[in-house]
Amino acid sequence: MKTDVLVIGGSAAGIVAAMVGKCCYQDKEFTVLRNQSTALVPCGIPYIFGSLSGTDEDVISDGIFDKAGIKLLVDEAKELNVETKLCRTASGEEIQFDRLVLATGSTPYVPGWLPGTDLTNVFTIPKDKVALDRVLTQLETCEKIVTIGGGFIGVEVSDEIHKRGKSVTIVELLPHILGVAFDAEIASHAEEILQNRGVVLKTGVGVKAILGQAGKVTGVELQDGQQIEADAVILAMGYRPNTALAVAAGLPVNEMGFIKVDEYMRTQKPDVFAVGDCAEKRDFVTRKPSAVMLASTATSEARVAGANLYQLSVVKTFSGTIAIFSTAIGDTAFGAAGLTETAARKEGFNIVTGSFIGIDKHPGTLSNAHKQMVKLVVARDSGVILGGEVMGGPSTGELINVIGLAIENRMTVNSLFTAQIGTHPLLTAPPTAYPLIKAAETVLHQMRK
Amino acid sequence: MKTDVLVIGGSAAGIVAAMVGKCCYQDKEFTVLRNQSTALVPCGIPYIFGSLSGTDEDVISDGIFDKAGIKLLVDEAKELNVETKLCRTASGEEIQFDRLVLATGSTPYVPGWLPGTDLTNVFTIPKDKVALDRVLTQLETCEKIVTIGGGFIGVEVSDEIHKRGKSVTIVELLPHILGVAFDAEIASHAEEILQNRGVVLKTGVGVKAILGQAGKVTGVELQDGQQIEADAVILAMGYRPNTALAVAAGLPVNEMGFIKVDEYMRTQKPDVFAVGDCAEKRDFVTRKPSAVMLASTATSEARVAGANLYQLSVVKTFSGTIAIFSTAIGDTAFGAAGLTETAARKEGFNIVTGSFIGIDKHPGTLSNAHKQMVKLVVARDSGVILGGEVMGGPSTGELINVIGLAIENRMTVNSLFTAQIGTHPLLTAPPTAYPLIKAAETVLHQMRK
Repeated sequence: MKTDVLVIGGSAAGIVAAMVGKCCYQDKEFTVLRNQSTALVPCGIPYIFGSLSGTDEDVISDGIFDKAGIKLLVDEAKELNVETKLCRTASGEEIQFDRLVLATGSTPYVPGWLPGTDLTNVFTIPKDKVALDRVLTQLETCEKIVTIGGGFIGVEVSDEIHKRGKSVTIVELLPHILGVAFDAEIASHAEEILQNRGVVLKTGVGVKAILGQAGKVTGVELQDGQQIEADAVILAMGYRPNTALAVAAGLPVNEMGFIKVDEYMRTQKPDVFAVGDCAEKRDFVTRKPSAVMLASTATSEARVAGANLYQLSVVKTFSGTIAIFSTAIGDTAFGAAGLTETAARKEGFNIVTGSFIGIDKHPGTLSNAHKQMVKLVVARDSGVILGGEVMGGPSTGELINVIGLAIENRMTVNSLFTAQIGTHPLLTAPPTAYPLIKAAETVLHQMRK
Repeated sequence: MKTDVLVIGGSAAGIVAAMVGKCCYQDKEFTVLRNQSTALVPCGIPYIFGSLSGTDEDVISDGIFDKAGIKLLVDEAKELNVETKLCRTASGEEIQFDRLVLATGSTPYVPGWLPGTDLTNVFTIPKDKVALDRVLTQLETCEKIVTIGGGFIGVEVSDEIHKRGKSVTIVELLPHILGVAFDAEIASHAEEILQNRGVVLKTGVGVKAILGQAGKVTGVELQDGQQIEADAVILAMGYRPNTALAVAAGLPVNEMGFIKVDEYMRTQKPDVFAVGDCAEKRDFVTRKPSAVMLASTATSEARVAGANLYQLSVVKTFSGTIAIFSTAIGDTAFGAAGLTETAARKEGFNIVTGSFIGIDKHPGTLSNAHKQMVKLVVARDSGVILGGEVMGGPSTGELINVIGLAIENRMTVNSLFTAQIGTHPLLTAPPTAYPLIKAAETVLHQMRK
């Protein structure tokens, strides 16, 4: 078969690249090649373990393709020739394309050095409905779960599993869970909440081995010799980009294993783009290669690629991954954008930080008012905002986007301090003590010293 | 007595000017002169009529002054001499100052042309605890209330009063309530929600007279001859700046009656600043004088004035009022920033608009997911974002701040389209269909035509 644009991968990045592309180039034929018959909402996956009844409630409707006039092909790309522009699939189909978007995503990392990962009831969290359905079924019979890795996926999945009445322990090598995205003082709040909910945490300690008997998990041994009993282990140790297809086709990858791309998501072969988890990223501030994988970053990349498939119609005005995260544990939400204080210091930045704790409604006598804390990380000499963290109520997810946009616009703390911020009693902190602005004020005060 | 800095007015603008000023100039003595013994949280006032038990739950604690080392004087400024830098109060006190900040606020507008405003049970909504307590007491015995004016205050107060089981009718001259801040398609949603809650709306019709008998309200007569029975009338027809003191002192006001100020909130007299509702504002986009009065704008002005009382230490990086509003009716929130489509067309801008309706969580199967609509107004030739409107759940208050910051940074729709926006299932719309980005995409699509 022949198509103008072939998109390999049908998750967030692939969908958006195809949708935006089709919208920009309506006379071109777009085909999305997806190796799963049903696609899941990737960020919703942790919630199939608790809040949602299962994977069926986390499905991306294929109707979006039909509606947009995009062809969906359920099959697996097996071989790619970027010179002859040909893709061969598992079913033997040969697809001739004019433009190619690689959106092949990522797979859970399973460390080779860790004994016992092949035992029954050792699970990863792939973005695959069939595999996850199997995990869900097997977990039903398990009571004591150990999650290895206290990043976002580890924390969210553990908290959800715990909601179904299981005993859950998270083991994290760093001093704090969520320790890459948040500084200690905020991460420790997340820990407190999780512990109060009954999730057990072991932080600052690595895993030595997954223990088993008769081929089945019986526990986890930590580096300090401690043993934790378990009938299931979840590996939440991050994801690795899926690049086998690209590498076999001769496309270069960077030192972290991501497909090399330029600002417009073009690989080193003309007419071949890569977006999402499989594509190279660079940190917005440090300019170093970054391994952060987020659906929000992926879709931003996909928009740029989709719009620029045939001509550079959308000029990219910023470059690099800001890494805007958010999550919620119980009714407390956490958000982070850019560099943490720890990361900024480690990178050698001369920084000033400022924090403020307020309330997310006003007056605080209104029902459901929630404590809100904002922390800013600012470069001392230039005043440029490098990062921010938020802890608060449900508005945290958008408040961290306010900070993200400030970083993207390279706003200084001075500009943020004089910025106009809309407020409302039922929806935000008070104008007199809006934590984001007060945090900026604290930073300015420090800088004057 | 003598003080280094005198701030006249103890509401949002006065508080923030004094607090920021004291923080910047710690060796200076700051005095806040307030003509009320207790100050209310201004934006919380509508909620004393329903959600809160009364004004006592909407009080700004005086403790903040003590804590900051600021002197609070409850007295009224009666006479001001900006040459000799002297202020005389109602109690006869003479205050000698070095720097002065006028934060005298605004008072409800009572139209001279409207017969019947002096009848018993005709109320305004002043920012004054004693007066509001009187309104609350008198309202207790009333059952049929007519609110004249369907702006934010009129709508919020009416909805709250209605919560206490009263019958409420809003009369609005414009075709839609909230019609200055929102375009018709969004304002009409607000109308639908209010009407479903039982508030009666009369839009597109003016008021001819407030009717009475024996000195007491009996109803309202509309311009079309219709009469509405009422035992109380609330005038919510806007506010006028309190400038009598400034005018008597010879400080110039602009054509709309606001005290003239420069970018740093300095009046035409050296060492005299004005901030908040009493101070001149200019629209961020149109550069015309603006009469928008918001606590968020006021506090932004106050931060600039406070920091720059003795030296220009905080450079103002943007100029003009963006006017970022938000409100909530039931569980639906509304936000607006910058120009509406209607206003932009009226101003002669060649614009493109784009809207998108999505959902504020993902997947939508999660509980409490709320529809979210975003509309963007963009200048066609430059692509600069002029305004935005949001309708959605509780995150609306911060989402409109994302748009506000985009406007403040003069972002183009192209930059916004490629922006990185953090998302999370429980906190935001999905990354594949984040309404703000999709609205930008729609605008870009229109622009390509």
